[in-house]
Amino acid sequence: MKVLLIGSHGTIGKAVAATLTPTHVVIGVNHRTSDLTVDLADSTSIRSLFEHVGMVDAVICAAGAARFRPLGELTEEDFVFGNQNKLMGQVNVARLAQEWLAERGSITLTSGVLAREPMPGSASVSLINAGIEGFVRAAALELRSGLRINAVSPPWVTETVQAMGMSIADTLPASTVAKAYRDSVQGTMTGQILDARRYA
Amino acid sequence: MKVLLIGSHGTIGKAVAATLTPTHVVIGVNHRTSDLTVDLADSTSIRSLFEHVGMVDAVICAAGAARFRPLGELTEEDFVFGNQNKLMGQVNVARLAQEWLAERGSITLTSGVLAREPMPGSASVSLINAGIEGFVRAAALELRSGLRINAVSPPWVTETVQAMGMSIADTLPASTVAKAYRDSVQGTMTGQILDARRYA
Repeated sequence: MKVLLIGSHGTIGKAVAATLTPTHVVIGVNHRTSDLTVDLADSTSIRSLFEHVGMVDAVICAAGAARFRPLGELTEEDFVFGNQNKLMGQVNVARLAQEWLAERGSITLTSGVLAREPMPGSASVSLINAGIEGFVRAAALELRSGLRINAVSPPWVTETVQAMGMSIADTLPASTVAKAYRDSVQGTMTGQILDARRYA
Repeated sequence: MKVLLIGSHGTIGKAVAATLTPTHVVIGVNHRTSDLTVDLADSTSIRSLFEHVGMVDAVICAAGAARFRPLGELTEEDFVFGNQNKLMGQVNVARLAQEWLAERGSITLTSGVLAREPMPGSASVSLINAGIEGFVRAAALELRSGLRINAVSPPWVTETVQAMGMSIADTLPASTVAKAYRDSVQGTMTGQILDARRYA
């Protein structure tokens, strides 16, 4: 399959690329450093990406920025920033991908454990991750016939937490999280939230 | 208690006012036709409302607009409209309410059954309702000490569905839904999503 992977230089994205490359053609896309770039916060940029790449069999979005900070410091602008980037960026990827997906193609977005298990600082991220899950469940009912959409919900990723110098308890290596993306691409499910912890 | 009720002229809001009025002072607010008005899509308007009303014991938001239409017809602007209104409007109500809530005060927002049980046409509404639930779960961890926040998740309301000329199977009268708001105001729970169907 030809797989468009948005966020291929991220911690999760690199692992997804490594997992899929042996059996699929992975086209990597990033915000900055890559042959192909996209600005998730700008639907024109997303549209240009799809026009440039053409038809694919699967679209994965393992990207999206949002601000993690104490509720008392989260400004309206902080919420709007994440809503435009990780939330609407992924919604727009899904909306626009429909035109460029081959029959039986799939869309895989990224939510995260904070959707259901918040922590101090996560108000915006929890909103976004839960919103993505609500969108995926609903959009699955109306995609063009045969197309599928799921979200992977990763827990904290070991490599990320290690880089932050924090305890890696309850984390999963990116290579394990990547298996959930692989299943979403290769499987037959739709409208599902794939909890990456089930792959531990 | 002094309860600020945003959306007091709506189908649910009227029932909430009727349920709370015997034992509480309810200050009703609406988008248009009321002594007090607010534009949920504009945080300046929300801030002015709180400044005008002063300290209260509870804030309820039973308002918020979003667009229900087929996924193929939902434009980016449709999503952004609802995100600004029902989603960020309620987030801003909760953020700003903190300054104007007495000790042990509460905030009650409104999500909806489509967060978890989508139907064709609900992609934006499902995103918003799920997002509100994610926000409420997270914000509860960080509100000023003693304050509480919950969301009520109403099913389709009988009066609304009747007005649309559709089958009222699986609907609840607004007066039943109102009991969930009453419990959020009078109870001790926080970070909870109150499924109004449990009051049937």
